[in-house]
Formats: sequence, C-alpha cells, structure tokens
Amino acid sequence: MAKSSFEYVKLFERSDVLLPQCWPVVRIDGRGFHRFSDVHGFRKPNDDRSLGLMNKAATSVMKDFKDVVIAYGQSDEYSFVLDKKTNLYNRRESKILSNMVSLFTSCFTFHWSEFFPTTPLKYAPSFDGRVILYPSKEVLRDYLSWRQADCHINNLYNTVFWALVQEGGLTPNEAQVKLKGTNAGGKNEILFSQFGVNYNNLSQLYRKGTVLMKALGSNLCAAGDGDKPSDTILSLNEDIIRDDFWKAHPEILRDEGENLAKKNQQ
Amino acid sequence: MAKSSFEYVKLFERSDVLLPQCWPVVRIDGRGFHRFSDVHGFRKPNDDRSLGLMNKAATSVMKDFKDVVIAYGQSDEYSFVLDKKTNLYNRRESKILSNMVSLFTSCFTFHWSEFFPTTPLKYAPSFDGRVILYPSKEVLRDYLSWRQADCHINNLYNTVFWALVQEGGLTPNEAQVKLKGTNAGGKNEILFSQFGVNYNNLSQLYRKGTVLMKALGSNLCAAGDGDKPSDTILSLNEDIIRDDFWKAHPEILRDEGENLAKKNQQ
Amino acid sequence: MAKSSFEYVKLFERSDVLLPQCWPVVRIDGRGFHRFSDVHGFRKPNDDRSLGLMNKAATSVMKDFKDVVIAYGQSDEYSFVLDKKTNLYNRRESKILSNMVSLFTSCFTFHWSEFFPTTPLKYAPSFDGRVILYPSKEVLRDYLSWRQADCHINNLYNTVFWALVQEGGLTPNEAQVKLKGTNAGGKNEILFSQFGVNYNNLSQLYRKGTVLMKALGSNLCAAGDGDKPSDTILSLNEDIIRDDFWKAHPEILRDEGENLAKKNQQ
Amino acid sequence: MAKSSFEYVKLFERSDVLLPQCWPVVRIDGRGFHRFSDVHGFRKPNDDRSLGLMNKAATSVMKDFKDVVIAYGQSDEYSFVLDKKTNLYNRRESKILSNMVSLFTSCFTFHWSEFFPTTPLKYAPSFDGRVILYPSKEVLRDYLSWRQADCHINNLYNTVFWALVQEGGLTPNEAQVKLKGTNAGGKNEILFSQFGVNYNNLSQLYRKGTVLMKALGSNLCAAGDGDKPSDTILSLNEDIIRDDFWKAHPEILRDEGENLAKKNQQ
Repeated sequence: MAKSSFEYVKLFERSDVLLPQCWPVVRIDGRGFHRFSDVHGFRKPNDDRSLGLMNKAATSVMKDFKDVVIAYGQSDEYSFVLDKKTNLYNRRESKILSNMVSLFTSCFTFHWSEFFPTTPLKYAPSFDGRVILYPSKEVLRDYLSWRQADCHINNLYNTVFWALVQEGGLTPNEAQVKLKGTNAGGKNEILFSQFGVNYNNLSQLYRKGTVLMKALGSNLCAAGDGDKPSDTILSLNEDIIRDDFWKAHPEILRDEGENLAKKNQQ
Repeated sequence: MAKSSFEYVKLFERSDVLLPQCWPVVRIDGRGFHRFSDVHGFRKPNDDRSLGLMNKAATSVMKDFKDVVIAYGQSDEYSFVLDKKTNLYNRRESKILSNMVSLFTSCFTFHWSEFFPTTPLKYAPSFDGRVILYPSKEVLRDYLSWRQADCHINNLYNTVFWALVQEGGLTPNEAQVKLKGTNAGGKNEILFSQFGVNYNNLSQLYRKGTVLMKALGSNLCAAGDGDKPSDTILSLNEDIIRDDFWKAHPEILRDEGENLAKKNQQ
Repeated sequence: MAKSSFEYVKLFERSDVLLPQCWPVVRIDGRGFHRFSDVHGFRKPNDDRSLGLMNKAATSVMKDFKDVVIAYGQSDEYSFVLDKKTNLYNRRESKILSNMVSLFTSCFTFHWSEFFPTTPLKYAPSFDGRVILYPSKEVLRDYLSWRQADCHINNLYNTVFWALVQEGGLTPNEAQVKLKGTNAGGKNEILFSQFGVNYNNLSQLYRKGTVLMKALGSNLCAAGDGDKPSDTILSLNEDIIRDDFWKAHPEILRDEGENLAKKNQQ
Repeated sequence: MAKSSFEYVKLFERSDVLLPQCWPVVRIDGRGFHRFSDVHGFRKPNDDRSLGLMNKAATSVMKDFKDVVIAYGQSDEYSFVLDKKTNLYNRRESKILSNMVSLFTSCFTFHWSEFFPTTPLKYAPSFDGRVILYPSKEVLRDYLSWRQADCHINNLYNTVFWALVQEGGLTPNEAQVKLKGTNAGGKNEILFSQFGVNYNNLSQLYRKGTVLMKALGSNLCAAGDGDKPSDTILSLNEDIIRDDFWKAHPEILRDEGENLAKKNQQ
C-alpha cells in the first residue's frame, strides 16, 4: 500500500529487546485500588469475590500467553513469569508488557459480574505493570518468595487490624497505633488471646496467595473447565518459599543452558 | 512494616525515565482486531459503533490523564500525546505505558454495551501499546500527519474494496486483485464511475479520523457531558496535516523552552 | 568466512541507537586527575601546559569526527556536541562514546611530551565519558552555560585558595576554612584587597575555558596548522552564556527541523 | 560550592545500570587497524610486538580493575570479563565502558616504544568498545569460545594467505581467489604440501590467542613483575573452548547464587 512521506517518524521508535536467557517477570498492580475497593464494598481483610476475579483474569492471561510458566497473585497484584527462552513478540518489552496488562485488565472488567453479581461496576478499573528480568533460577525464586513473604506480612497485619476494628470496636486510627511496632508474634498473640483466632488455621488462600501453573496430564482440580488437557491451569495456595514445591515441579524453571551452542548449531 | 530478606530482588528493576522535554506519544492498537471485528459483526468498511466506543475510551483516558494535550484515533488505534513537560509518574515509561493501555482497555470493555446494545461481548478485547519520544514540534506534527495520512490511505482502499464486494458482487480475492497497483485517483474513479460515490463527500469521521483536544472555555460541542468546563474534551474530524489546525490552536504544542533556566531558578 | 556455532552469543548485544534529532553531547573527564596532577607537578591554580594539551587532544578529536559542531573544555574535562542530525556510527551510543573517549585519551598521551617536554609521563592517564542527549537548542545552550558557569565558579575559588596558600602563607586547611561560606563578591574582595589582583583581568583562558569551533573560510588564528581551510578549528576563550556568541555564529546550532518531511520525501 | 541555575540540565542524564548478577563483558577493538598496521609496518600474518603490546595494555587494565576475572585477546581485540557481582562504578555502563577503553588505549600508546623501539608512533591509535551482559556461565563460556574460534579461523586464513603472497609469489588478489571456498582441511593441506608447514606446530600465541587470569599463589610465569602476589596476572595461550581449562580454574566463574537471600540478610 502507498506510504506517506511522514513515515520517517518510525525511526524514533526504540528497540527494547529483553536480554536473552533471563526470566522476564511481568508484575501487574491495581491502580488506585484502595478507592476502588471502598467504592465497590470489598470485604475486609479479604474479599473472596475479588480474589476469585483476580485469579480468573490471571488464568485467562496464562491460557492466552503459553510461555507463562508460573504466575503468583495476592491482593490486587499478579506476577507472570515467562520462560527464559520465550520468544514472545521477539522479546520486545513494550509489546509484552502492554499486551499482558491489557488482557488482564480486560478480563477483570469482562468477568466482573460473574464474581460480583449484585455489585455493578461503577467505573473502569485499571492496573499498572512492569517487566523485570531475572538471570538465574535462584534469584527468580527469591523474587517469588519476596511476593509471598509480602502476602504473609500484609495479611497478618490486615487480619489483626480489621479484627480490632470490626470486632474490637477500635477506630482505624486506634488499631493502627496499637499495632505500631508489634512483630509477628505480637500480632498472633492479639489474634489468639483477644479474638480466639489461630492465624495458622486461616485459609491458605489468604495466607499464601495463589500459584497458577500448567497441569502435566494431572487429574488435580483445574481452574479452567472444558479445556484440552494441555491448557489446564492449576490453582494452588501452597508455600513456594521452601524447596518442596520446586522439587515437586522441576519442569517449571527447567534450565537447559548447558547445551546452548549445540542447540544453536545446524 | 517488616521487610523480608528477599527484598534485594528490587535491585533488578531498571530505571526507564523518558528524556525530558520531548513529547511522549503513547500509541495503542487493537490486538487481533481482525478476528475480533469478525466475531462481533463489525460493519465494513467502517462501524460507527466501534469508532464511537474507541472515542469514548480515549476521552476517558484523556480526562483521567490531564497531561494528554491531544489525541488522535482511527480504526482500532489511538495515539495520546503528553505535554513535553509532563511529570506523569516521574516520566517512567513502564508506568505511563501500562496505566494508559490498561485504562483504555478497561473503558473499551466497560462501555461496550452502550455502543453495542444488541451485540454481547463474546470475549475480552485487548490492545498493545508503545511509547515514542518526539523532540520537536515539527516531528511531532509529522507523526500525527503520518497517522492521518494512514487513515486516508486505508479508508480509501477499504471503501472501494467493500463497495466492490458488497455492491459489485466481487469476491474479496477478486476485489484485491482489481485494486492491486491502483493509485488514489484510480480508486476514486472506480468509486465514482461504478458506484456513483464521491469519496470526498463521505463522512470526515471516516476520512480524517478523530482528534480529541481540551476545550478552552469553548462553547463547541463537547464529547463529555456533565463535566466541569475545564474537563471538556472536544472531538473533531478535521485535517491536522495542514497548518490551519495548528494556527487555530497554538496552545496545544506550546513550547516555552526559551526560559528554562530562569524557570528552574529559585 | 566460516562461522562457529557460538555465534549466537551476538544476540546478547543490545541496540543503543540515540534518539534522532537530539544533540548528543559527549563529556570526557579526567579519571583520578587530582593524583595525576600532583604526580606530574601541575601548576596551581592553572597549568597552561595541561590546558594546552587538553585543547590539542580535543582539536584532534574534532578534526577526526567531522560531526562535532562545537566543543567546550575547562580543567580536565571536555564536552563535544555532535550535530543533531549526525549519523556517526548510525548513532550507536557505545560506538560514539568509546571511539571519542579513546581517541581523546590517545592524543593526550601521544602529545604529552610536546606540552610537558621536561616532565616524563609517569603512568598512563585515562578519562571517563558519557553521552547526554539534548532535544532543543535552548537546553543545549543551557548545558554549555552550565559548564562555563562551573568553570568560573571553580576558577574563582581555586584562584583565591591558591593565593592564600602560595602567597598568603595559609595551610590548605586554613584556606578552606577561610573561604567557607564566602560568595563571589567576598572572594573577589580577598583577591583584590589582600593580593592586589583584579579577577576580571586574569586570562580568559582560565575564567572562560576554551571553545573549539570550525572556521568558515575565516582568517582568524587557527588551532591547527597545515590543514585545508575546511579543517581549520578555531580556539576561543569567549563567553558562551550570553546571546552574543550565538548570534555571531548561527550556523553552529542550525536547526532546519521545519522541512523534515519534505526532505525525507523522494 | 555555589550552583548555577543551569544545573537542571543534569536531569537529561540517563541511568544505565547493568542488570545485576550477569557477567559484563567489555570488548575492545582497534579502530581502523588495517591502516594503522600498514602505516607502522606490522609483520604478517602475526606481529609479536603488536601482540605483546596488546597483552601489556590488557594486563594493565586488569591490574587496575580488580573485578576483571578473566580477559581474552587476539589480533587487535580484547575482551574483559567482570565478575558477575561486580559493583564497579555501581555497574553504570558508560562509566565502565569509557574508563576501561580509555585506560587500555592510554596504555597501548604509553608503552608503544617498549614494544616498537625502532618504529616511532606516527599518530594516535584508538579503540572502540562495547559492553555485553551474559546471564549464565554457559553462555559466557560460549562467548569466549566464539572469540577463540574466531581467532583460529582468522589465523588459519591469514597464515595461508600470507604464505601464498610472501613465499608463493601470488598477488593478494590471487591468494584471495585461491582460498575462496576452501575449508579448514584445504587450507591445512596447502600449508603442508606447498610450504611444508604443519599448522598445529605454529605458536599457540597465534592459534589460541591470549588468556589473562589472576594467579592464586601460583609459581607460574607471571606477566607482571615486582607485583604483590595477589596482583600477579598470568598470561596463557591455552584452549578455553574445551572443559579442561575451566575444570582446572573453577574459581574464575564461581557462581554462588544459591545463597543470595541469606547473604543479603543482615
């Protein structure tokens, strides 16, 4: 088709190819979700509908982008780990970032009424995202551990905070003051002595967040339904900080770097 | 709040601050919209519902991100020009790109039923995006001219193509063969002699695309309703290649570079 | 020639093309020159031999890289401004940076004995460098003004400091304490009342630094000798902060951006 | 010290921190060395003086930049591998690149007369450079294998080429035509049958290039003299493609990634 004389402006586009053989992680975060959750009456400290919707959107992203090898979500954020050898969009960062954030957002909006059947969506929710590269299995695992540790820290805090407010009759301000400087043990103690709650008995969904991974001909409960076996995404609420999970699933971060030159030979 | 020992993984995040005093352009494109428009029965060569929805989503983005000084859309793409002095997200590219693409997508999905009341959304639509920097008014105008020239080229082609198919009884393949190698004059001639259509009388919405800009206390028709005057976004279908538009609206790309040092003085 | 199976490692090289139509500035700074100047007995506060050698090296760089439109040097640093339309090394940042730093360094070492005939070079001197992009004439001028203002600030300080030490009999520490918190007026006053020196009568070489530019068929004194007229580099010690210099030399930062699309047309 | 109002121009400097935990490789290449070697009468196919000078300059770079764990050189190029955990210049790419290229160049010029005592340097030689990141031991080894394979390929070609020209009486053009399309076996055959040369008996310096590494309390021949043991740089001409070298020197690319989180803990 005809080209215009203005086409030279394409020269201003910058190459943004991600370094090969590093695992790209796309982390998506809710934008202004404090207000969004207030406006839409999210339950505190955790809203199963919102978590379900986040997981639904993430599962859709994972089904569409086959090179996602594992995803981890908690609260209003989700991290997608792409295979270190992915050639998705020729590893162009902007393409990967924008497409994944866009699809996640669209699915969140599209599936809203399935999870909030009695709460109409009052305005369009949105998410931001970023891409981070991790060059080794060890540091990638540390990344995921960081997010799961963050889930634990925030959830313990929020659980005590909202118990003090909702059942203890404190104002949010009073609850905040009371918790200031307490460590994990102190918070557990308040929960147990004042509200009879053993934190470790709470749902793993809240304490551990959600891990999405591909089924390997497995007969475990699948997040999707009606899919071909290879498309099945498993949803787990397990610890991914300790080695057990990774020993059980060595295929996720498989690392066949040793034979690169041979593979690149023809 | 407590921090985990894993927090060092944040060091792998890369700084991506956009060069100051260049105009950032965020261009958003529909992902797989050929299939999406087929599945949802878009009218050819132009679907007023789809164009209306694109403009609605873009208007929402512009109302939210106040530093967008002008936006231009056609077909399934939209370009947003940020002020060259914007400090949005401290000019971090990933933040700007992901937030704008996400909000655009969410609005497109959220407002779907207003524009397609009888066509349920069958799956979640998505868009990709990129950020390009333009260092001068002249080259930024050439960028916008490039997109509007592209609108014209594509629309002329599509108008003849679909006339040949819908009214001329040609198969898509036959229409493609017939158009191969024709120039603009040839296409105009087919339209006029065979279908009695004068291309220049077709709607400017199709031939020129849509320009969104902020009203300056204007009483022109506004895209939004119920907004404060300062929030009013104007929607125009004018030529932005020639100088007339820019002479009439010098405030859009105002360039006060001369006094930088003085301004930065305290 | 034969290729090895290892060649795939080239894929890890990153594209680093500089944004078009911005002026690239390469600034080179002496590495560890405090020690270097001590070891080689540089005169304080200014050493004409060192400044002459810096200017010689910079002139050589400018003769080799024809796209340098102006250079500015002071102390142990030099800034080279490339034409905004330069296509040197296809605008690849690493190539431009490394080649210019390398040639500057090599010339500094190569010509050492011409400027320090009685001081053998005791070890290999080196420089670091960086590339900065400036998108407009105004901010590029502000960059050069920044360096020249820096020259003035440092030179005034050093002139008083060394007068206090060399003629006033103060220790370096005492001189530093005495100068702490003084403004420009205070320093001028010390120079005049205590040492009978009128700062404004000192050599412009020290107070203004050195500007290198290309002669335009000029018969002014040239830095080079035996060159073709077009190769002649002029060395000036003028103010480049005020407008006068730039009005006298409009060709240096000529900016023909207005006709880009036409130029890119064929 | 006083600051000028122009200081805002520093905001245009871009952050260029190298991704952590990847091995940065700085490769330096002679600029225009075809002409440089002609002008200075380099012996063909290999000039021991030039190779000695290259190795001298590289050894100096390695002594100065302690985080270089291994360097490899051949012809007019040298690659320096920095430790994957290096914090040199806070991993800023421009600083690392410019400082290493500059010092290498300066040493090459500074030590010229030691290696070319009867050949005065006619003009200032220079080098370009680039930084490449390698995220794993395997691909880093493949990088070094690529360079050593390149050394072999080029040296075999040059050895036959110059034999044909210098002893065989062919013009350079005739030699080129004769060699076109020959494989390694064919070139070895020409060398042996026509010139009685067994390629594998030629000096390993020519066939393998030079590896520089740090001595570990070793009593091997050292490239430096008078240095502290820890400063001793070993110069070897060994094969680094096969595993033997790396098994003998596991400390070079040691990789203690497994305990990152623990190490980053306080």
